[in-house]
Amino acid sequence: MINSSTRPTIGVFDSGFGGLTVLQALLTYLPGARYAFLGDTARLPYGSKSRRTIARYAIESAHFLVREQGAEFLVIACNTASALALDAIQDAVPVPVLGVIEPGAKAALEASRTGDVLVIATDATVQSHAYASACHARGLRAVEKACPLLVPLVEEGWTNHPITAEVIRIYLDELWAEATQKAMHPDALVLGCTHYPLLRPLIEAAVPPGVQVIDSAAAAAHAAVLQFNGRAAAHPASSGEQQTEIHCFATDSVEKFERLGSRFLGRPVGKVGLVDLGG
Amino acid sequence: MINSSTRPTIGVFDSGFGGLTVLQALLTYLPGARYAFLGDTARLPYGSKSRRTIARYAIESAHFLVREQGAEFLVIACNTASALALDAIQDAVPVPVLGVIEPGAKAALEASRTGDVLVIATDATVQSHAYASACHARGLRAVEKACPLLVPLVEEGWTNHPITAEVIRIYLDELWAEATQKAMHPDALVLGCTHYPLLRPLIEAAVPPGVQVIDSAAAAAHAAVLQFNGRAAAHPASSGEQQTEIHCFATDSVEKFERLGSRFLGRPVGKVGLVDLGG
Repeated sequence: MINSSTRPTIGVFDSGFGGLTVLQALLTYLPGARYAFLGDTARLPYGSKSRRTIARYAIESAHFLVREQGAEFLVIACNTASALALDAIQDAVPVPVLGVIEPGAKAALEASRTGDVLVIATDATVQSHAYASACHARGLRAVEKACPLLVPLVEEGWTNHPITAEVIRIYLDELWAEATQKAMHPDALVLGCTHYPLLRPLIEAAVPPGVQVIDSAAAAAHAAVLQFNGRAAAHPASSGEQQTEIHCFATDSVEKFERLGSRFLGRPVGKVGLVDLGG
Repeated sequence: MINSSTRPTIGVFDSGFGGLTVLQALLTYLPGARYAFLGDTARLPYGSKSRRTIARYAIESAHFLVREQGAEFLVIACNTASALALDAIQDAVPVPVLGVIEPGAKAALEASRTGDVLVIATDATVQSHAYASACHARGLRAVEKACPLLVPLVEEGWTNHPITAEVIRIYLDELWAEATQKAMHPDALVLGCTHYPLLRPLIEAAVPPGVQVIDSAAAAAHAAVLQFNGRAAAHPASSGEQQTEIHCFATDSVEKFERLGSRFLGRPVGKVGLVDLGG
């Protein structure tokens, strides 16, 4: 492990760099910590792959963050990995592991008055019904929809493009029609993919007034801070007065990561380390 | 190897199932052969990854087709792998290996009167400039453009959707503007990705009259048949009178492969075998 500071390291993992939106939120809530971020860019996207493969990839990534980077707390910023492999990751590493699904569902519960919630996410996340289950466990009704074109549109940089607005309208119309058919009155829409916060303005423009858009990335970061601060009480060196340290790693295309990553993090990502997970 | 027939096996490889468009063309030109198709679906898309990673993945896939399936001839139906790793694959296996780039450029030469050619492909294929080099070697001028949204649009099933038509128009307008700026008069457009033939009607509607749309998948299949028939003269068991055998394999999501594959192959793909390449 390369942690030379006395502060504990928070590991953040995603299949790509979308999870940098979670890291961005963590930096807001918990500055002064040491962060190690890994994007498994050689094997993205996870969203179209099977549970077995996603679990294997995610565990290898978690091992890197814990064993090589000394992470004492892991945030799985990838919705797909959170939905399909959170248990497997928790079994594989000896540190607390937080996913984005439960915090997203909890934020939906706090936002919704009608108890009816919509979720947009990748194919694999939707097929797992992880958000629906987490919502049902809280007494909410949920309808989910896979929106596989939104990630490529964000990666193409069309975050404020009429095509993207139209694709969002088509997806949300279909989702709304399904909710209406089930006699639901949704007043919350969960962004169940870390790429989607970059489309927030277009998505907010596409939903009816009174519908709250919930960023599960921000919700997860907030939950992580609450959990982490509980632990950190026994760890005197962790303090907001220290300088924030960010170390980013990717399994492929560090140039692309460095180029696009700042768009997600909202600040330069710095030099990105190349990691070989053998996959 | 599981080849129980006396016919040689033709191995066809792609990162996903887009390469089934090449297999479909092969079936037309060379029925009665035994085909083994591998889609490395656990690690797609290759189009956004680095040369090093693409070469490693492609060589592992080629080894499977040659060592496990007894392929005596390999067609690399993946434009990205052909562009970035053809030499590496040829060095790694003891059988003839044909990519899609050279046949695509050759077909462009035959189609173009002005000598000016346009190429649309994935990010990685365009960044490699493999098509431009192959065109230049034949005395053609070429302008290439990455169209990263087209693959997801095909996979979403929007092959005849107004959004897709508009995205194609935007991409081709930008490509045309660049060609015009270079005082070029293109009369051929190469489809440098095996997903694009499914968009052929929309693409043909978007290009000016007189511009020929060239399917590098069909061109590669035709070239493979010419090469293969030369070899097969010494192989009396290979004949069009025998029944065609198709064995499809994928490294992930065989259900998705079986569901979407028939769209690319133009006939049912049958039972797809799951292969673990360890990545």
